[in-house]
Amino acid sequence: MYAVNVRDHFMIAHSFRGAVFGPAQRMHGATYVVDLELRREALDPDGIVVDIGLATQVLHEELALLNFRNLDEMPEFAGKNTTTEFLARVLFDRIAARIAAGAMGPHATERGGVPGLSAMRVCLNESHVAWAAYEGVLPATTA
Amino acid sequence: MYAVNVRDHFMIAHSFRGAVFGPAQRMHGATYVVDLELRREALDPDGIVVDIGLATQVLHEELALLNFRNLDEMPEFAGKNTTTEFLARVLFDRIAARIAAGAMGPHATERGGVPGLSAMRVCLNESHVAWAAYEGVLPATTA
Amino acid sequence: MYAVNVRDHFMIAHSFRGAVFGPAQRMHGATYVVDLELRREALDPDGIVVDIGLATQVLHEELALLNFRNLDEMPEFAGKNTTTEFLARVLFDRIAARIAAGAMGPHATERGGVPGLSAMRVCLNESHVAWAAYEGVLPATTA
Amino acid sequence: MYAVNVRDHFMIAHSFRGAVFGPAQRMHGATYVVDLELRREALDPDGIVVDIGLATQVLHEELALLNFRNLDEMPEFAGKNTTTEFLARVLFDRIAARIAAGAMGPHATERGGVPGLSAMRVCLNESHVAWAAYEGVLPATTA
Amino acid sequence: MYAVNVRDHFMIAHSFRGAVFGPAQRMHGATYVVDLELRREALDPDGIVVDIGLATQVLHEELALLNFRNLDEMPEFAGKNTTTEFLARVLFDRIAARIAAGAMGPHATERGGVPGLSAMRVCLNESHVAWAAYEGVLPATTA
Amino acid sequence: MYAVNVRDHFMIAHSFRGAVFGPAQRMHGATYVVDLELRREALDPDGIVVDIGLATQVLHEELALLNFRNLDEMPEFAGKNTTTEFLARVLFDRIAARIAAGAMGPHATERGGVPGLSAMRVCLNESHVAWAAYEGVLPATTA
Repeated sequence: MYAVNVRDHFMIAHSFRGAVFGPAQRMHGATYVVDLELRREALDPDGIVVDIGLATQVLHEELALLNFRNLDEMPEFAGKNTTTEFLARVLFDRIAARIAAGAMGPHATERGGVPGLSAMRVCLNESHVAWAAYEGVLPATTA
Repeated sequence: MYAVNVRDHFMIAHSFRGAVFGPAQRMHGATYVVDLELRREALDPDGIVVDIGLATQVLHEELALLNFRNLDEMPEFAGKNTTTEFLARVLFDRIAARIAAGAMGPHATERGGVPGLSAMRVCLNESHVAWAAYEGVLPATTA
Repeated sequence: MYAVNVRDHFMIAHSFRGAVFGPAQRMHGATYVVDLELRREALDPDGIVVDIGLATQVLHEELALLNFRNLDEMPEFAGKNTTTEFLARVLFDRIAARIAAGAMGPHATERGGVPGLSAMRVCLNESHVAWAAYEGVLPATTA
Repeated sequence: MYAVNVRDHFMIAHSFRGAVFGPAQRMHGATYVVDLELRREALDPDGIVVDIGLATQVLHEELALLNFRNLDEMPEFAGKNTTTEFLARVLFDRIAARIAAGAMGPHATERGGVPGLSAMRVCLNESHVAWAAYEGVLPATTA
Repeated sequence: MYAVNVRDHFMIAHSFRGAVFGPAQRMHGATYVVDLELRREALDPDGIVVDIGLATQVLHEELALLNFRNLDEMPEFAGKNTTTEFLARVLFDRIAARIAAGAMGPHATERGGVPGLSAMRVCLNESHVAWAAYEGVLPATTA
Repeated sequence: MYAVNVRDHFMIAHSFRGAVFGPAQRMHGATYVVDLELRREALDPDGIVVDIGLATQVLHEELALLNFRNLDEMPEFAGKNTTTEFLARVLFDRIAARIAAGAMGPHATERGGVPGLSAMRVCLNESHVAWAAYEGVLPATTA
């Protein structure tokens, strides 16, 4: 199994509801340094897992939608605790949809008999002592 | 699959027996920076993998039992080489037992139909160029 | 010149005023991983720069006053842009005052003819690609 | 499952062919910080996954064959794009062959009923924001 | 004294002349992860050392002129060993000239009686075990 | 001012005397990841601060004298607390003496009118949250 990882970051404000969160129930924030790992069983005819330029761009575009935002005010997160693990899943689903829609180009999909990206992991590093991640399979795609 | 990781460290002295260890057969020591990773298939109703405060506390308590110790003098390690990989397993077993005993609280176990923690990985970073880890499944728990 | 550094972190929400800040004028947040470096010309009779346990405790106490807060709502920051460099200075001044008041114990001050801590640096790492710091001299202290 | 990881690095020049590589089609280079991770189901009778000294030596020897080279001029890479993921696989195959030939000593193979190394992962970190890896199983070996 | 640091990277090929360089006399390459640190005695009226967006942009533009290049073929380096320390100085001089020419905007220069940037440090990290840097004062600038 | 840094590590056992050390009065140990930084006003005629191969070798040789040792049993440390800051100074003095004796070769000393190494910093990273360092000037040397 091959894997390629690219890294970027975003900075947000939010608050949590539930006694388990203690002082994090107050409005606070975080820098999330995000690792996006893409996996594939065999290399593409060009010798790559994915176009690293496009992977970097898609990650940056998705993070830009959250960057410098107060997540408590975003309708799509209403009634949700935007924990680190929850956000890892949100980014996984959004990026998986972008891949399925072709945003990572033909190099991410089946080409010359080589199956495309097969799995993905999104990891959010929230400090020097804590991170959370979500990983799962990707549906088979054809250009 | 979701994962959450917390980090802490401990500092010990020890020595090894066996020609394979070369100069490490002498009394020496190490700083181990420990990553404790907890995995779960679905998020708890509060949107978390585990109460990160309790996970941090349990890790700290287990490391405190070893911190600032000469492992060669601890009865539970008599006749054992306390290698990095061996210590990773020791910590895995001890923390797994703590979880089974409820030390990570109700958020670590089955709640509202969501199964509890399913797997764990303990990684000991011993320098900027070496680490060892042990990972395995956790038994299903009910509050 | 000797130096000792300890590290901790805090997580806050805030917003900035001024066109130079662009999208950071919106409510957002940050994780700050803080390095506190203490300097001294000669070692104390115990062979240390400072009681590292007390240095860690003082840093943690000062960060706890900011942790999980919306800085925009704190009276002491009214009318200020709580930029990373500004916060580095705030923490410098607060910790310097704590040292002057004896919070780092007798090992931080003149003892047996050895002058106490002479300088300090506070560095806030806000992501994997950016940090800001403030450093300056400390006034001579006597126990 | 146990794992042990050792780290080293090498520095090379190369160029790529194919529009997907953009400016990387020009002659350029990279520092690759390499993580070699070796996995095993149970510890050897000495309490280790592998002789870490031999693992470090084998990794260093393999990297030395590439270090300070222009990969475009090496016959074994003729007609290939020596991407990070491709090089991860090259190193995987070469190190796997060295293990099969006994280069990591008797501690890497079946001993006293304990099966030898079962899997390996080679990860090449090419910058602070990107890495690629290849992982796979190792054939069962007997001393 | 205040400081702000931003980080980016570039990847090049080159070779050295001189017996002291050993195997690095061959064509090889490097990834350089660059830290650009800007220092100032007092904060600007907006509470900043510099417009971090412009600092990031200027660093990126200067690295882009070197990125994915064979330095041996660039006329400005003819007859020079492009060592890590040499490149740190090249980047220092180029960025200092950009600052003097106003590329970091009015926030980098004297404003409202607050002197502008006073010093700079450029550090090139070439692996996990080596880096080189150049630091020096900056000439006083007026908008 | 130019600087070059190389990194290596060593692992030791020791104990401290004095109430300020709390549980560290017990026999324990540490991994020290050591940064050796060498400074010079101008580059050598070869375009370097120092022969990085020799700097790496000298650092490794000095660390080898301490590696895998119980410092409490070494005569040169009798009656001393081998704290991190104390060890930084020990290594500074030993490496300074090696440089003065020519161990870093002619590239470390005055050549062609360019003064040799002028200052040095030794930093011992003892965990992910603490380090200590000693820095000072080096005496002028002539080949």
